[in-house]
Amino acid sequence: MLNKNIVNFIGCEAEYEEAKIVLFGSPFDSTTSYRPGTRFGPQAMRNESYGLETYSPYQDKDLLDCKVFDSGDLELPIGDTERVLAAIEERTETIIKDGKIPFMIGGEHLVTLGSVRAAARNYPDLHIVHFDAHADLREDYLGVKLSHACVLRRSWELLGDGRIHQFGIRSGDREEFEWAKEGHVAMRKFDFDNLTETVTRLRGKPVYFTIDLDVLDPSVFPGTGTPEAGGVSFLELLKAMLKTAKGCHIVGCDVNELSPAYDGSGVSTATAGKIVRELLLALS
Amino acid sequence: MLNKNIVNFIGCEAEYEEAKIVLFGSPFDSTTSYRPGTRFGPQAMRNESYGLETYSPYQDKDLLDCKVFDSGDLELPIGDTERVLAAIEERTETIIKDGKIPFMIGGEHLVTLGSVRAAARNYPDLHIVHFDAHADLREDYLGVKLSHACVLRRSWELLGDGRIHQFGIRSGDREEFEWAKEGHVAMRKFDFDNLTETVTRLRGKPVYFTIDLDVLDPSVFPGTGTPEAGGVSFLELLKAMLKTAKGCHIVGCDVNELSPAYDGSGVSTATAGKIVRELLLALS
Amino acid sequence: MLNKNIVNFIGCEAEYEEAKIVLFGSPFDSTTSYRPGTRFGPQAMRNESYGLETYSPYQDKDLLDCKVFDSGDLELPIGDTERVLAAIEERTETIIKDGKIPFMIGGEHLVTLGSVRAAARNYPDLHIVHFDAHADLREDYLGVKLSHACVLRRSWELLGDGRIHQFGIRSGDREEFEWAKEGHVAMRKFDFDNLTETVTRLRGKPVYFTIDLDVLDPSVFPGTGTPEAGGVSFLELLKAMLKTAKGCHIVGCDVNELSPAYDGSGVSTATAGKIVRELLLALS
Amino acid sequence: MLNKNIVNFIGCEAEYEEAKIVLFGSPFDSTTSYRPGTRFGPQAMRNESYGLETYSPYQDKDLLDCKVFDSGDLELPIGDTERVLAAIEERTETIIKDGKIPFMIGGEHLVTLGSVRAAARNYPDLHIVHFDAHADLREDYLGVKLSHACVLRRSWELLGDGRIHQFGIRSGDREEFEWAKEGHVAMRKFDFDNLTETVTRLRGKPVYFTIDLDVLDPSVFPGTGTPEAGGVSFLELLKAMLKTAKGCHIVGCDVNELSPAYDGSGVSTATAGKIVRELLLALS
Amino acid sequence: MLNKNIVNFIGCEAEYEEAKIVLFGSPFDSTTSYRPGTRFGPQAMRNESYGLETYSPYQDKDLLDCKVFDSGDLELPIGDTERVLAAIEERTETIIKDGKIPFMIGGEHLVTLGSVRAAARNYPDLHIVHFDAHADLREDYLGVKLSHACVLRRSWELLGDGRIHQFGIRSGDREEFEWAKEGHVAMRKFDFDNLTETVTRLRGKPVYFTIDLDVLDPSVFPGTGTPEAGGVSFLELLKAMLKTAKGCHIVGCDVNELSPAYDGSGVSTATAGKIVRELLLALS
Amino acid sequence: MLNKNIVNFIGCEAEYEEAKIVLFGSPFDSTTSYRPGTRFGPQAMRNESYGLETYSPYQDKDLLDCKVFDSGDLELPIGDTERVLAAIEERTETIIKDGKIPFMIGGEHLVTLGSVRAAARNYPDLHIVHFDAHADLREDYLGVKLSHACVLRRSWELLGDGRIHQFGIRSGDREEFEWAKEGHVAMRKFDFDNLTETVTRLRGKPVYFTIDLDVLDPSVFPGTGTPEAGGVSFLELLKAMLKTAKGCHIVGCDVNELSPAYDGSGVSTATAGKIVRELLLALS
Repeated sequence: MLNKNIVNFIGCEAEYEEAKIVLFGSPFDSTTSYRPGTRFGPQAMRNESYGLETYSPYQDKDLLDCKVFDSGDLELPIGDTERVLAAIEERTETIIKDGKIPFMIGGEHLVTLGSVRAAARNYPDLHIVHFDAHADLREDYLGVKLSHACVLRRSWELLGDGRIHQFGIRSGDREEFEWAKEGHVAMRKFDFDNLTETVTRLRGKPVYFTIDLDVLDPSVFPGTGTPEAGGVSFLELLKAMLKTAKGCHIVGCDVNELSPAYDGSGVSTATAGKIVRELLLALS
Repeated sequence: MLNKNIVNFIGCEAEYEEAKIVLFGSPFDSTTSYRPGTRFGPQAMRNESYGLETYSPYQDKDLLDCKVFDSGDLELPIGDTERVLAAIEERTETIIKDGKIPFMIGGEHLVTLGSVRAAARNYPDLHIVHFDAHADLREDYLGVKLSHACVLRRSWELLGDGRIHQFGIRSGDREEFEWAKEGHVAMRKFDFDNLTETVTRLRGKPVYFTIDLDVLDPSVFPGTGTPEAGGVSFLELLKAMLKTAKGCHIVGCDVNELSPAYDGSGVSTATAGKIVRELLLALS
Repeated sequence: MLNKNIVNFIGCEAEYEEAKIVLFGSPFDSTTSYRPGTRFGPQAMRNESYGLETYSPYQDKDLLDCKVFDSGDLELPIGDTERVLAAIEERTETIIKDGKIPFMIGGEHLVTLGSVRAAARNYPDLHIVHFDAHADLREDYLGVKLSHACVLRRSWELLGDGRIHQFGIRSGDREEFEWAKEGHVAMRKFDFDNLTETVTRLRGKPVYFTIDLDVLDPSVFPGTGTPEAGGVSFLELLKAMLKTAKGCHIVGCDVNELSPAYDGSGVSTATAGKIVRELLLALS
Repeated sequence: MLNKNIVNFIGCEAEYEEAKIVLFGSPFDSTTSYRPGTRFGPQAMRNESYGLETYSPYQDKDLLDCKVFDSGDLELPIGDTERVLAAIEERTETIIKDGKIPFMIGGEHLVTLGSVRAAARNYPDLHIVHFDAHADLREDYLGVKLSHACVLRRSWELLGDGRIHQFGIRSGDREEFEWAKEGHVAMRKFDFDNLTETVTRLRGKPVYFTIDLDVLDPSVFPGTGTPEAGGVSFLELLKAMLKTAKGCHIVGCDVNELSPAYDGSGVSTATAGKIVRELLLALS
Repeated sequence: MLNKNIVNFIGCEAEYEEAKIVLFGSPFDSTTSYRPGTRFGPQAMRNESYGLETYSPYQDKDLLDCKVFDSGDLELPIGDTERVLAAIEERTETIIKDGKIPFMIGGEHLVTLGSVRAAARNYPDLHIVHFDAHADLREDYLGVKLSHACVLRRSWELLGDGRIHQFGIRSGDREEFEWAKEGHVAMRKFDFDNLTETVTRLRGKPVYFTIDLDVLDPSVFPGTGTPEAGGVSFLELLKAMLKTAKGCHIVGCDVNELSPAYDGSGVSTATAGKIVRELLLALS
Repeated sequence: MLNKNIVNFIGCEAEYEEAKIVLFGSPFDSTTSYRPGTRFGPQAMRNESYGLETYSPYQDKDLLDCKVFDSGDLELPIGDTERVLAAIEERTETIIKDGKIPFMIGGEHLVTLGSVRAAARNYPDLHIVHFDAHADLREDYLGVKLSHACVLRRSWELLGDGRIHQFGIRSGDREEFEWAKEGHVAMRKFDFDNLTETVTRLRGKPVYFTIDLDVLDPSVFPGTGTPEAGGVSFLELLKAMLKTAKGCHIVGCDVNELSPAYDGSGVSTATAGKIVRELLLALS
């Protein structure tokens, strides 16, 4: 008798019950103001993960030794943002309640809000570590409050001052930078300087870790909606990510903003997959 | 002294006051369920119109002899569908009130609903002639009612039975075809047979004319989100379009669903522009 | 508890036991002499099938009413042609032995040989109906006998004269056309004329039906390794395919030679998926 | 001892002395007003000709039986149009003087002027048969007289009224169509009707045959600078081309306006190569 | 009443009279010897500038506070190089005479010659600071003197020895490097070492600043005709550019050689736009 | 009389007899497990080499002063790996026997095995210097022993322990890294540290130098089948390559794994060509 066609991210073959980490995709990009396409990110990462190895020479670990369950992509009601966020929140809630780490792959950055809502409810002293090219701190975008450009501002409304720690920021409007300087969030422009101090300070606290892949230089990661020259290298991101994942108590995380069609070479998808692999290994 | 950079669809250089037809773009695609990208349609048609001539050997007419004003693209609040439709409705209303024909270029097909709302209010006995590959008659799409897949159903709610005349339909779910057969709309599958009769019957009545460019065969028009093999040829569409435009009292129209990035050759954009040129000429 | 990520061709959700037809993919292209890439065909058809509807207005049937099981893609030892064919033969054998129809999606055309081996053993009076741009009748290609360019010649060695019925052929070297004329196979050049007679003559006989999608005109189907101008239209292929599927006793079939990366618009993949849908419906 | 790397259009392996037809490429596109890229046409046709067969099932002839010499591409001084035309004229002159037929592959359509200059000098009663989407009859283009958009007008200046026979024309400005109607050239719009009469009338006269590949519908041939919907099919072009080549006394010819980069699928290049093959066979 | 469609580079919304800087595009690439396409550079930069912010976190300045007028693109007679240069020279002259800084966006590098002609006439002691991968110092290219490959040589003829300061050069023929060493121009290979000294020495002198974007590494900027591995990073270019713009008396400048179609990801266009934004801010 | 169309890598115009180095291409990719396409690498490098200069400012040398013969590409029996390797071995043998250095351009990495077989027979104490992202040390790949993923393991079987020196390795399965640590090969992960020591130790010994271009970071070289983030820069590779070529006694070499179609910008092909130019110059 033949088997059904089960498609996992490479090496993520655990059963749900035994899993420590649960992967899921949120294929959503409807509030993207410039170039859409991240809805195809999760499927692309999963399909193209077969060009990767399960073994990492960076960490000398193998995904086959970890316990990760891949629950596939959510089916999201494109066009109704609030219901999309509710679906993400519910999935994250389920995973947290079952004592596992939710690991979401986007999708545009707004999807983070759904996960943060669930995480913040379950971990009232939640902090966010945020790697990104863009501040995402707008009050609204052309009047739209549930926009990718506002996702950290909406998260701040849930968590309050001093809980959000941004790194790599190199784009935004003047108001975002000034609002950040008022002390609402800790923003490190351009790179990961100070990350060690941040990680030390967060020791013991629950942390949601969100990585907008456009923090990478577009030479490394062209497959994204709003490429911003002047980003960090792959090795810089890898190092910063491992430091965060190993130094903090991560209770949820996401990797988002891959828009595979903008990079015909497949490099961006392969790089996103490698980031996911390394983060999965670091969390295991 | 140097001039500002005014960018019109080729040959559309009339002043607003003298114009008979007013062009505007609605760069929106947020409810697109499969592959987004039509938000770039209006800009692409305008930019690439310079590869066209203003003269048509089909109609022996020249755009330079017509009175068309190009008012550019609406700035739409991506992520908030209802406000997007309101902006389109308002623009259409303004143009109709000024005694001109609104000519919208999309964008996904949902934008038609904004224009139809204004047209239906101003012309209570409005009919719609609809060329498309897809029926767009769903009650909802994953629970979303303001979806491109429902736009003619929403229009029917405004107009009632017998007002919508569909041609070229070759895709939909079973319910849409059955609902159509119940007599709510007149649906011609696959081609333009019966169009002459329809045009004759509509003589004197106000008609909104909406063309989803994917009615064309994807060989001719690959640059669209949901290509459906088995469509009509360019010359078949041209002939049907001229018959409708010349035989009916058109009070508003749109040409939508160009997604330029899916066709790297530029053929789809050039073809869309040629359709717009021919329809402008036919309406003049 | 969350579910695993099962990925089927749209609407192919039957359990194996109840299935009448079993789909599987053969992602292989190593003997392709010109441009490889068909190994990505099966995955692309499956992933992009979600842009299709399950309902066909051509046949007024719905895939959800059929009993099709999708067993995913074979994992093939790229680089070892004989073992690749053995794996395909074994899968086909299993499905036939279980009383179901094997429906393979390629891959390059050589994969047909694996299925034909199994079918010929189980149905000694097997005939082949073959739609293709290329004759594929070479004795060898640069000395290689297990080549896509030789697949019907190898099949002829199994079946003998008069068993292979080719349609749409418009490319080959002189020897292939002359060899065909000697009566070994029945070759119809360029189109489907005579198909009705063939179908009538084959009534009651077991038929393996193989469709090389490059029989389509490249305007309709550019995503293939060796495009040949002058092919048939989608509607011509659809009509011929339905005639064959409904008039013959099909005991196995395949649809092959989609090379998705050559068509950035996705039209070829969507068209291949529509062909698969229509053939599944016709066989149900 | 190893051989040098000689690259011919497939099957064009004759020595110069024995050749009846001499192929050469003119990789030039500097006057292209819209989208350049035809300079890469000749090399692409030659390289990709290896995806074709040398045998034609349409004519039942094989290039290996013909006597064609491929002299490669001219090295042209990009940026100096007059010297470019002089180089083309010289090459054409050489070939004609040696009693052979020059067969040029472009490049933009202006290259035809170089060849026509040589042909008109050697054959004072020269006629031109011209297949094209565009009339190319402008007096000048933004003041430039040596422009692709003027090439037939410049040719007319050499030959006079009644010598140019155009087919398939579907684009131009109003003046071109009116100037043609004054009787300077014979223009058939849209298709090949009347071609038989033209061929009959030209019997015995020396004919230069120039094919702008954009006469083809862009569905068949998207890889060109200025695609114009509504063109002829491959089979229509093939039939018209064979009629002309066999019915007229062809003393020179060209096939131009392939811009390979605009068609990532390679279909346009393959189609151009097939046209070249069929024309070479028809002239042999 | 509706407005016309005015399209500016983002944030460049000043009226001409009040402007300090005047932007204009020169969409020309007819002497490009290898791969054309830079004619589409200016339009692409302008259209895609809407993916940028007007605020720079590098300089803590906002374009909305600057006075820049965007006069759109010149309409150039493609095919007649001398008239093209004359049009550029005239536009530059107008802007200089009006006491403003001309800021040209190319186009191929030859366009610089038009601007330099006007600048040299108005500022007899003009110096040029030149960032580029290529020396552009040839006496001629296949006999063509008005070629992109000769633009700095032609500029030297206007200005004489010691006036041209090149940085980042990593490609050219042997003669160019030897001619430079003879002292005609100051050439710094590979990087920006010595730039500080150059800027210091040029203090008070009028400087024309020309940036060929291919000075960037092709990983950062693949969208150009002749990519040369081994270039500078975005941050290196940014730093060198700000040093030059702030340390020198810039009387005119240009940013050229973006060929957007070669970079499907849009990164090159976004990067070019960011360079333009930063240079505009630095000059304000 | 006109010349045949001889196409060499730029500047490689020596006659065979006088040549010191003989270039040839091996257009093969049939064992590629992930994404094929390297078969088009040799032709692309040759064609696009005309965008390069023959002069290197890095080495101050010119290809026109070297003695390189380009013998074109082998015609390989795609689909029969053993015969492919035999053809490569024979070509390499011929060149070595004639006292010249074979310089192969791939093609997938397995082609190296053909050359190493010939080199190992002629130079029994052969060492291999290997730059790559992947270890290529598997015993087999899905049971296939003649696979690109096993090429250095197969080479080790010919040469024994201590003869293979790997640099830049950043991907493989756990077994490959462990097997290497057992001392069979010397593997340097991630970069070129220790290369100087290796070169010193190899002084006087015959060395085969194989460069898999995916050792480069994918930002620099996206055009390859299996891109791996985190590679070396162009200048790092250039420096390491020159150190090896000048410090060792190179008796054969290859540059492989360019898959040009995955990089639409052409940067990867241009970079590969520049690597070939620099290596040819360094060996001269």
